[in-house]
Amino acid sequence: MPPAGAAGRAEQASILAEIVHARRTGPNVGQLISACEADDTLMKPGSETAANLREMRRDYDLATKLPGELVAELAKVGSQSQEVWKQAREKSDWQMFAPWLEKMLTLTKRKSECYGIAPGGEAYDNLIDEYEPGATASMIQATFTPLRSELSALLARVKESGTPPSEKPLKVKIEPAKQHTFGNFVMGACGFDTQAGRLDVTTHPFCSGIGPGDTRLTTRYREEKFTDALYGTMHEMGHGLYEQGLPKHNYFGEPRAGDISLGIHESQSRMWENFVGRSKPFWKWALPHAKKILGKQLGKYDAKDYFMAVNTSRPSLIRVEADEATYNLHVMVRFEIERALINGSMKVKDIPGEWNRRYQEYLGVAVPDERRGCLQDVHWSFGLIGYFPTYTLGNLYAAQFWERINSDLPDLQRDIAKGKFADLKQWLNEKVHKHGRRYRAGELCKRITGKELSAKPLLKHLTDRAELVYNL
Amino acid sequence: MPPAGAAGRAEQASILAEIVHARRTGPNVGQLISACEADDTLMKPGSETAANLREMRRDYDLATKLPGELVAELAKVGSQSQEVWKQAREKSDWQMFAPWLEKMLTLTKRKSECYGIAPGGEAYDNLIDEYEPGATASMIQATFTPLRSELSALLARVKESGTPPSEKPLKVKIEPAKQHTFGNFVMGACGFDTQAGRLDVTTHPFCSGIGPGDTRLTTRYREEKFTDALYGTMHEMGHGLYEQGLPKHNYFGEPRAGDISLGIHESQSRMWENFVGRSKPFWKWALPHAKKILGKQLGKYDAKDYFMAVNTSRPSLIRVEADEATYNLHVMVRFEIERALINGSMKVKDIPGEWNRRYQEYLGVAVPDERRGCLQDVHWSFGLIGYFPTYTLGNLYAAQFWERINSDLPDLQRDIAKGKFADLKQWLNEKVHKHGRRYRAGELCKRITGKELSAKPLLKHLTDRAELVYNL
Repeated sequence: MPPAGAAGRAEQASILAEIVHARRTGPNVGQLISACEADDTLMKPGSETAANLREMRRDYDLATKLPGELVAELAKVGSQSQEVWKQAREKSDWQMFAPWLEKMLTLTKRKSECYGIAPGGEAYDNLIDEYEPGATASMIQATFTPLRSELSALLARVKESGTPPSEKPLKVKIEPAKQHTFGNFVMGACGFDTQAGRLDVTTHPFCSGIGPGDTRLTTRYREEKFTDALYGTMHEMGHGLYEQGLPKHNYFGEPRAGDISLGIHESQSRMWENFVGRSKPFWKWALPHAKKILGKQLGKYDAKDYFMAVNTSRPSLIRVEADEATYNLHVMVRFEIERALINGSMKVKDIPGEWNRRYQEYLGVAVPDERRGCLQDVHWSFGLIGYFPTYTLGNLYAAQFWERINSDLPDLQRDIAKGKFADLKQWLNEKVHKHGRRYRAGELCKRITGKELSAKPLLKHLTDRAELVYNL
Repeated sequence: MPPAGAAGRAEQASILAEIVHARRTGPNVGQLISACEADDTLMKPGSETAANLREMRRDYDLATKLPGELVAELAKVGSQSQEVWKQAREKSDWQMFAPWLEKMLTLTKRKSECYGIAPGGEAYDNLIDEYEPGATASMIQATFTPLRSELSALLARVKESGTPPSEKPLKVKIEPAKQHTFGNFVMGACGFDTQAGRLDVTTHPFCSGIGPGDTRLTTRYREEKFTDALYGTMHEMGHGLYEQGLPKHNYFGEPRAGDISLGIHESQSRMWENFVGRSKPFWKWALPHAKKILGKQLGKYDAKDYFMAVNTSRPSLIRVEADEATYNLHVMVRFEIERALINGSMKVKDIPGEWNRRYQEYLGVAVPDERRGCLQDVHWSFGLIGYFPTYTLGNLYAAQFWERINSDLPDLQRDIAKGKFADLKQWLNEKVHKHGRRYRAGELCKRITGKELSAKPLLKHLTDRAELVYNL
């Protein structure tokens, strides 16, 4: 959007946010929720209305528990801190950023205190809970720890194998307009409703579920590597299919038409991007179409070549450029550090050392400077603490759901090879999307898969792929 | 935008409109305006604050004089009526649409009554006044009548000349992406600030001055006639330069940062589209750039060929496809009919006959059916009555300003031939844009040109062009 309009847009957004906040926290809202909660017919355990009210109560409490002064302070310091972070990252200067992170941590701890810490819980739980309702630090730790050690071991096996697949199939130059056509073609085949959404171009890809019948996706095109946009698009499309599957036409604005959590949202995007999009059956179907739409240059390669090329794995320094197998290790570094910062067992000044030590230990890479180390992400600078774990939770849920989907739909792999995605989409609609926020993420996982969330399905998926691609 | 989201967007727009209306018409607003009006220091005649308050009073009165029930009824019946109009136009069935137009007329007359008719005025004045504050039917009639008879005479001379210029220069096939680049190039040269606005593609071109530093333009591309988009873009750019020239950064939301009227807005778009864009000096400058950006196919023609081709004139049935010379005759037919409908001297059932008679008399064309006759425009169906005259007022103001500009800037024609538009833009900024709503259109015209609005400058401009192009 035009840069000269940024200040005006910010002012409009803030006026709207103020109006919305005032309506959401009006005393009559609290009274109405209390009145409903006193009505047994609405609160029948397990019923849809009870779940809807549980989530309304949650939203109301979250919106009213923080004093306005703290919300304003978080916003103000956060935006200053973000500006400092930009410069600090550019200069790779941790000292410059450290005092601002201190300030943000102090405010964030105060925020957590306002919510009140649950018995047996910790301050960090409240921060996770904003993005992943019901999740706790200890539950995440219990899943992440086995994942981390097994992934590090897998990474070592890949490294030793010494036979990386060729990435030549990805290095064909393809103009953006053709990539856009191909992206839209894939989205259409997967079942994204273009009457109720569209795909555009931006610097940072995103999915925005604006309202009933209006889900906007964006992507970006690199001429020299068309799979970047393809997987970016499939990722956002996964988010978009979730948004389109929520019952917004009937219940827009109510929790029952909302998404469960960032983790579940991410499970949908990762599933289409990685479990579908990077599979061999997908390329079997997609390649002939890609040749037609993107150009004959692709004709030199077959589906297996593409399957191999898009699944190369190598440890790296930058999270957003990481491959499917190593990505979660980047997340764990952040999770461990932010948890320790909040519970007081780590100090801001020790972050660079702790960061670099973990990158060496988990990923086997040496961090050369802070720009490519602990200054690489924007999140902490404006108070997004407790957010990182949801990326890996998304992968974990995706993997656990995927196992179940393949047992419910035994023809799925063959269907994908034929470009038939309707059963998969319907499964997701029925099992995940249509319930809105009726079940918390952990509960949904148990309902669908019969089990608590575990690291095993994701580990199995990543190991199987690595063994195929690297001939382990 | 995604069609499935239309209902949701309409609901959001209506909620926002309700909130804005409630704030605008709150009793404290009326009290504050009254308090200011009682303060002589603010109301010093001719001062900026007095003008600002005059316009605030106007907005407040307009917003409070209509009963909510009537506003709702106009919106409801208007949207139903528009749906009927769509079908009626398709079927070319006046009988189908007539009862709905009756309903809309009844509501529109009630609306005019709510405003109260000024002494010596007529009901139709109040309708014009919504779009062109201060303009009256009799004032418009006085300018339109001589314009009409002279234009009809000019048209007859053109028809007799029998030597239309070749339109071949326009019929080169050019892909949209190149046209887009060329449009942006022309906009940049003319002084449109792309840091504070942008050009995109839609079905219906428009300009939207969203807020400070954010002016959005749209256009549409036809491969087979690139000048359509070029002039569409230059038209919207004229609106956009007005929006960018208003003092929104300091006074957004106040009348002093608003535009005067639709007529003055249209004068800006028409000036860039027709007075600049269809001139010979413009093509002298633009053609070499066009050849570079659009392709060598243009090399067969010179600037004069393009000047001639884009100024061909022929009477036609459809307003939106009309050329510069005949366009105003289309407007006059509508103005005369809607004025007569409101003052009761014409009945709805007589519209087709009156329409067709005027097209024959003013334009010399026979209307074959109502689809291409009195059913062609959407305006009346949802109550846009009093709006049409502003199109011609725009042309009239543009012509009268243009005479003055060329006497203030004697080098302008030479500058245009060199692609220098800075002095023109600055003149418009200083004389028109920066004043916001300080002066009403008629007052501004007198301040700038020393004269009341007259048909003569436009007639001279159109006659000069026709004589050049048709060798009269």
